[in-house]
Amino acid sequence: MQVSPANLSSSWIPAIVVVATLLPAVAVGQQPASHQEVLQLVDQRAAHFSGISRTIWEFAELGYQEQKSSALLQSELRSAGFRVQSPVADEPTAFVAEYGQGEPVIGILGEFDALPGLSQAAKPDRSPVVADAPGHGCGHNLLGSGAALAAVALKEYMERNHVPGTLRYYGTPAEEGGDGKVYMIRAGLFHDVDVVLHWHPFDANSVSNGGMLAINTARFLFHGVAAHAALAPERGRSALDAVMLMGNGIEFLREHIPSNSRIHYVITNGGAAPNIVPDTAELYLYARNPSSVALSGVWNRILKISQGATLMTETTLDVKEIGGDANVLPNDALAKVAQRNLEEVGGFRYTPEETHFAEELQKSLPAGGARELDSTALIRPLRGPDPNEAAASTDVGDVSWNVPTIGFLAATFVPGVVPHTWQAAASAGMSIGQKGMIIAAKALAATGADLFSDRQLVLDAKADFRRQMEGKAYQSVIPDAQKPPLNYRNK
Amino acid sequence: MQVSPANLSSSWIPAIVVVATLLPAVAVGQQPASHQEVLQLVDQRAAHFSGISRTIWEFAELGYQEQKSSALLQSELRSAGFRVQSPVADEPTAFVAEYGQGEPVIGILGEFDALPGLSQAAKPDRSPVVADAPGHGCGHNLLGSGAALAAVALKEYMERNHVPGTLRYYGTPAEEGGDGKVYMIRAGLFHDVDVVLHWHPFDANSVSNGGMLAINTARFLFHGVAAHAALAPERGRSALDAVMLMGNGIEFLREHIPSNSRIHYVITNGGAAPNIVPDTAELYLYARNPSSVALSGVWNRILKISQGATLMTETTLDVKEIGGDANVLPNDALAKVAQRNLEEVGGFRYTPEETHFAEELQKSLPAGGARELDSTALIRPLRGPDPNEAAASTDVGDVSWNVPTIGFLAATFVPGVVPHTWQAAASAGMSIGQKGMIIAAKALAATGADLFSDRQLVLDAKADFRRQMEGKAYQSVIPDAQKPPLNYRNK
Amino acid sequence: MQVSPANLSSSWIPAIVVVATLLPAVAVGQQPASHQEVLQLVDQRAAHFSGISRTIWEFAELGYQEQKSSALLQSELRSAGFRVQSPVADEPTAFVAEYGQGEPVIGILGEFDALPGLSQAAKPDRSPVVADAPGHGCGHNLLGSGAALAAVALKEYMERNHVPGTLRYYGTPAEEGGDGKVYMIRAGLFHDVDVVLHWHPFDANSVSNGGMLAINTARFLFHGVAAHAALAPERGRSALDAVMLMGNGIEFLREHIPSNSRIHYVITNGGAAPNIVPDTAELYLYARNPSSVALSGVWNRILKISQGATLMTETTLDVKEIGGDANVLPNDALAKVAQRNLEEVGGFRYTPEETHFAEELQKSLPAGGARELDSTALIRPLRGPDPNEAAASTDVGDVSWNVPTIGFLAATFVPGVVPHTWQAAASAGMSIGQKGMIIAAKALAATGADLFSDRQLVLDAKADFRRQMEGKAYQSVIPDAQKPPLNYRNK
Amino acid sequence: MQVSPANLSSSWIPAIVVVATLLPAVAVGQQPASHQEVLQLVDQRAAHFSGISRTIWEFAELGYQEQKSSALLQSELRSAGFRVQSPVADEPTAFVAEYGQGEPVIGILGEFDALPGLSQAAKPDRSPVVADAPGHGCGHNLLGSGAALAAVALKEYMERNHVPGTLRYYGTPAEEGGDGKVYMIRAGLFHDVDVVLHWHPFDANSVSNGGMLAINTARFLFHGVAAHAALAPERGRSALDAVMLMGNGIEFLREHIPSNSRIHYVITNGGAAPNIVPDTAELYLYARNPSSVALSGVWNRILKISQGATLMTETTLDVKEIGGDANVLPNDALAKVAQRNLEEVGGFRYTPEETHFAEELQKSLPAGGARELDSTALIRPLRGPDPNEAAASTDVGDVSWNVPTIGFLAATFVPGVVPHTWQAAASAGMSIGQKGMIIAAKALAATGADLFSDRQLVLDAKADFRRQMEGKAYQSVIPDAQKPPLNYRNK
Repeated sequence: MQVSPANLSSSWIPAIVVVATLLPAVAVGQQPASHQEVLQLVDQRAAHFSGISRTIWEFAELGYQEQKSSALLQSELRSAGFRVQSPVADEPTAFVAEYGQGEPVIGILGEFDALPGLSQAAKPDRSPVVADAPGHGCGHNLLGSGAALAAVALKEYMERNHVPGTLRYYGTPAEEGGDGKVYMIRAGLFHDVDVVLHWHPFDANSVSNGGMLAINTARFLFHGVAAHAALAPERGRSALDAVMLMGNGIEFLREHIPSNSRIHYVITNGGAAPNIVPDTAELYLYARNPSSVALSGVWNRILKISQGATLMTETTLDVKEIGGDANVLPNDALAKVAQRNLEEVGGFRYTPEETHFAEELQKSLPAGGARELDSTALIRPLRGPDPNEAAASTDVGDVSWNVPTIGFLAATFVPGVVPHTWQAAASAGMSIGQKGMIIAAKALAATGADLFSDRQLVLDAKADFRRQMEGKAYQSVIPDAQKPPLNYRNK
Repeated sequence: MQVSPANLSSSWIPAIVVVATLLPAVAVGQQPASHQEVLQLVDQRAAHFSGISRTIWEFAELGYQEQKSSALLQSELRSAGFRVQSPVADEPTAFVAEYGQGEPVIGILGEFDALPGLSQAAKPDRSPVVADAPGHGCGHNLLGSGAALAAVALKEYMERNHVPGTLRYYGTPAEEGGDGKVYMIRAGLFHDVDVVLHWHPFDANSVSNGGMLAINTARFLFHGVAAHAALAPERGRSALDAVMLMGNGIEFLREHIPSNSRIHYVITNGGAAPNIVPDTAELYLYARNPSSVALSGVWNRILKISQGATLMTETTLDVKEIGGDANVLPNDALAKVAQRNLEEVGGFRYTPEETHFAEELQKSLPAGGARELDSTALIRPLRGPDPNEAAASTDVGDVSWNVPTIGFLAATFVPGVVPHTWQAAASAGMSIGQKGMIIAAKALAATGADLFSDRQLVLDAKADFRRQMEGKAYQSVIPDAQKPPLNYRNK
Repeated sequence: MQVSPANLSSSWIPAIVVVATLLPAVAVGQQPASHQEVLQLVDQRAAHFSGISRTIWEFAELGYQEQKSSALLQSELRSAGFRVQSPVADEPTAFVAEYGQGEPVIGILGEFDALPGLSQAAKPDRSPVVADAPGHGCGHNLLGSGAALAAVALKEYMERNHVPGTLRYYGTPAEEGGDGKVYMIRAGLFHDVDVVLHWHPFDANSVSNGGMLAINTARFLFHGVAAHAALAPERGRSALDAVMLMGNGIEFLREHIPSNSRIHYVITNGGAAPNIVPDTAELYLYARNPSSVALSGVWNRILKISQGATLMTETTLDVKEIGGDANVLPNDALAKVAQRNLEEVGGFRYTPEETHFAEELQKSLPAGGARELDSTALIRPLRGPDPNEAAASTDVGDVSWNVPTIGFLAATFVPGVVPHTWQAAASAGMSIGQKGMIIAAKALAATGADLFSDRQLVLDAKADFRRQMEGKAYQSVIPDAQKPPLNYRNK
Repeated sequence: MQVSPANLSSSWIPAIVVVATLLPAVAVGQQPASHQEVLQLVDQRAAHFSGISRTIWEFAELGYQEQKSSALLQSELRSAGFRVQSPVADEPTAFVAEYGQGEPVIGILGEFDALPGLSQAAKPDRSPVVADAPGHGCGHNLLGSGAALAAVALKEYMERNHVPGTLRYYGTPAEEGGDGKVYMIRAGLFHDVDVVLHWHPFDANSVSNGGMLAINTARFLFHGVAAHAALAPERGRSALDAVMLMGNGIEFLREHIPSNSRIHYVITNGGAAPNIVPDTAELYLYARNPSSVALSGVWNRILKISQGATLMTETTLDVKEIGGDANVLPNDALAKVAQRNLEEVGGFRYTPEETHFAEELQKSLPAGGARELDSTALIRPLRGPDPNEAAASTDVGDVSWNVPTIGFLAATFVPGVVPHTWQAAASAGMSIGQKGMIIAAKALAATGADLFSDRQLVLDAKADFRRQMEGKAYQSVIPDAQKPPLNYRNK
């Protein structure tokens, strides 16, 4: 995810949690046999894919630059018998790996990009491997590897049991701000898929049924007229003034949009030198809302504000590098199955060594930030999205507006650790993260198995999707003519 | 004038000043005989018109409400043999009084409106006659009466000497913010006049050759959508936000317009109650510059800013009650004659009683504000407008863009007293102000006599006017369809 | 209440509502006998107090000016056998009416102030009785009368049944922005009370268990230095600039406070005239948050912003007419009893005439604003406060931080009508409002009877109160030295 | 100079200019013999120092990095018989070269730093030697070399004629924003000097008698608290908000300071990423006024605004890298001598090749920017500083507040070319610039000769200096503890 609510969510955990080990088998008798087999298949490959996750963790490649990470995952899937197509959607590191044929078509999403500046050894104190280098602070090394583990195990299960249908692994680059999946959707790669499964590293185990914030992003580059600021300021038209006034306009907007919106910006070009009236200046802005529809209204007003700023300053404007993700739509039909399966899989507990590591690492968390280590053994109850809950954004949202989608969160991070931190990167590079990854892989594989075996489940998922989309239409804010921003991490 | 630079100008007085009583007759031999006669005619009527000035001072009527003041001046001029037309230009208190016929046509401007809140007895301490009532804080009681004194004396002189030509007295209401003369120009009342003379009360004696600031004024009334500010602020569109952002836009503009511009505003409607998103809000703004041409550029940018504010807030805008005066164009040909005549007339000195009054009154001035009482005996050297000098605005400016125009300032206010103060109102109600008025009346009458007797002088004035207007065209900011704002003082 | 969420709350109504007539008697057998009697006593006096409510509706007196309304209620209570003390707490229209002696001491809150500009006949279209005059747009005529009805019935019940304890009616003026109850608390009038009951007119029937927004209000009056804005703007220190910059500071603050906060302001003095640098200017501000504690942090930051604005402009500041209410704390022990009793009382249905009136009136509501008329027959399920719900503010909040407090809402307004509207005033002046009032009076009387008869209930309420207050301390933002703002409605 | 008014000043040139070749020898008989000799001595060394100027033009070293340029000038002066002390004042490239002994002590200022990004060949079209490399866009290669030429010739003249007294050349680095001379003053290097002479490249020949703007500069670095802007913006304290509000505060200040002030700023750090509340942000600001005293008042208000911004945002502030120059005080006694000498030296005319170069180069100037090439033959009349004239700033100002100071401008740039442009750099690298340099060297040398031979002239200069300083005291805004910002060009 682009950012994550882990530390905040600590306080949201409902009082009722379910201890996995105490759980009776939910809905016993439905698919226990099949799950047993597919879960074993995951277990047999778990160590290998833990190694894969570690290798990608070491690669730590930024968005649209994940050459080695992507190639490694492609190689694994090809070896396991998948047909791999790459590159796709004008994205050099995107790929689609496919097994089987016919309906249903079930997709699993994989991500593998790292974050700038978060290089970190698998140690419980701040220890960059290379200062200022990228690191897997959002655990996408686990995400892509765990999804591949699920895919490979599920493929083996299908083959053994002659299960008809098509299984796809989507290698989706640049989730962190590059909107990789949006361009893949636009290229038609999700056109014929029936259900999409995904997961994300987190500090707890739960089904992720919708939520996250729709997001629009853009650079507002203003052009004015340079002039000497002491000798002839009246000849200048200040692009910085336009940035300042756009900022002011945004602040005045806050009161008059839904209060669960978020708008935040930085000034990426504030003028060259004080003695020159700036002829260019740039404001880089994100806007978010739990609803893509509401966000669209907010975005329209932001555009008007930027136009107002040009009028006020006699400047002109380029709105550049437009990006955006939809919110993630829930799918209640899928969520019920996912919750049942995750509870069947259950959580896990730390070894004494892992406990020691986790306790050391928790010392670096802000006061009150640490949470019970035992919570990794629990599965949170199922809940839907809350429009007033703090959240981040992800391009999985766009997938969920096109295909019935359900996801999992797994306790890959030491409880209390939030994504986009060195603590997350540390956890993602060792056994704690890998254990969480295996939980996720099992839940994905079991749910995939259900979908291949129960045609009604797919129909229910589709019906729920149609209900969610009633009165809505998918429309990315990204202009049709805009290509994937392959260089967005070069700045 | 709408405001006046008296106290500031203290520091601008060049070191070289000319003591009137020591002056050799400048340009001796040209019109000494005629001046002697016309100046005597002024002296003979001085006491009477001093009484008229005192009566108007007691009337103290606000702009467009000067019924009694206008009627009194009309009555005096009619009695003296002028033909009076009133009302004119849709202004109930405007009039034109005319004597003679044929060319040249020489006009003298008269004003007679008071200012709100400046009621003051003719005493050297703050003593309102009626609390919060209007008062003659800009000395327009003297202005209109002194101009009438000059007109009556000059008419008598013309009649006695069979001088051909037409003499006009323009009774011009609402100079203080009502732009009375602009509507009179629009009505064609200055169409056929050759030269216009005017004067204004001040704390020193000098020729007023151009200067003052062009001014545009308007009310920016924004319309939004009301909503409960606690329950549904997102449904509101705040007109107050538009006012705030327009204000911000104005502040950012200041750096990028000529630094001798002035923009100032107040918020005349800032919303009804905190718990309601304001659906109306208003900003009342003045913009000024020494040049009408430069001001036009500044005004255009202010309008853009106001439009930008509507875009930023999804509000709409009425630009209302637009007003404006041009800067006063100099006329160097007329200025030379005017300076010669004013020096011929000379200044005056206070009686011991007046000196006592003036010294008492000066005690109320800000530290360093008082100036030498003897300065009333001096005539300042001639100078043209300085674009970097602080100044006020007057609708005489519009006249000067249509007709060759020259003016005088006379020491009606105790030295150091600035217009628009109770001290000015006090001075304007007693002998000190009246003595200054007589100086002005003499200078006007003598200059009028010169213009009627010396056709070349009129031609020179017109040539100088054409030179000044080269590349310029008169265009008031006031919309053609807008009527005189007769109720502007009712708010 | 100072404002109310009625129309918004329409969408919050949970799908599950309970039809009163179908309800089994909850907890049957506990106090049915006593309730029967006290409810009959309410019914016997209902017509009389409906008339009282109509009389006060006609008085329509503003906050701290409710002389006639207060006197009428005092007279009624005195006639019924209450001991009345008035005035109290330096508020001429406040009073305390008491019956009985000893413990427990149970209070019922009454309000009776009207709102400016909402004069309205009891007609379904906009028909002011007197243009721009006050009207009962928040239904406080019903509030005070209904509370008195409950008190009188309960007193009779106590007397008949020799129930020990003290019953108090608090006549609390100026709820609408005058913080009447805060000064009564400060005067010690709630010092010895065990439980406080209250109700408020609304468009539905429910228990009101906490909620509403804590609010702080103040006028920020800045003082600068006047100067002529054209001649010497550099000598001025603009109080309006301080207001503008304080406003800007507030806008920038919005992002960095909890997003369920509300801050809204108007500019009540934006300068006198454009050509004078304003030496005074004023911003009138409300800040709100569901939590008084969180609000205190927000308020502190607003004060810092106002100080920052003085630094930026070399002005000085008076923070004046400080007002404030706490949020209403829930009391779950009382809420359970209140819900049971309200369900026992049940709702009501309109007559054909009332239905016609309501249908006509609903035509004036904004699109989508109307709700089912049948909903007046329902009782909403019990729920606690939601910190993300839009809400208004009330000085009942301060009572709830001092004493265990529980309240009711009753369907006095046509469904879909929100408080502070002419539609609410119309409903409050006729039988629809009166029927709702009787529901409330019965629920109050029944709950009062329970409290007098069941000592454990009072103990439970106190325990719940202590739990709520854990780590909190009551502290009004109103300075100790500040007197009730008796003239606040004179502006 | 830090910036220069050349193109603007075009319009300020009085109509009366003096053709040098027609000039009668002013004040004939005073020092003609001595001037003839010293001017010849300049001519004999002119070609050599033209070469030196070209070499330094090729070095093009930035402020405090002028190692080669400084060493070359030191070497030349040492060879010519000066005693050289270097480094001085903690500035590695500063030096003082001295000849002779006793009184009077006459100083000549040399500068030699280049400007970033202005690399340019000596061609009349835009041709960088090295893209983005520094270039001599302000002609300091000529400045330092011409001053050295004057010093060497004057030393030879003194030696030949046994003129007593001390001649000093001040090698002053980093004039462009590094305030090199301020630290040299602080080190006491100007303590015992009687008169200081200086010159600057320009597009016309004139005496430079005072003027330029006093300037203060600083970086305002705000510190806040980072937080995730989507998940927990309420936990953040935005340093960017502080920058925005400081900017807003500055804009509101503009109206209320003298209108000949200048304030301009850029945002050098506007936050790292939109999704993080910025914990650092920086605004880099210059403030200027024709008077150091007035500027001090303006600066104080800017500091208050920055403090206000911290209060508004709960941030903290470092005011860093404070810099500042005083305005240049005039010295009328020296100016008269300087004007006489410059008129004696006279201007120069272009060769046909130079004319061709100049005409080509003028094609690149903005419309209306070019001026008559013949104007290089003229000497402008003497005038003093005009407080309303657009101007730049220089650290010569600080020298002039400590020692009687007079300067020259010489026509080194093609008429119409303004400093800090590639056109200036082109002119400074070829014969046009060198011819202007020789004019300046002659005027400096002749004036130096006068000062050594006429003790009364020194006394008059000191008397004029005392008069200028009456009521003033020199106080740099740079904190005593601050060292020269040797790395200021490394950013």
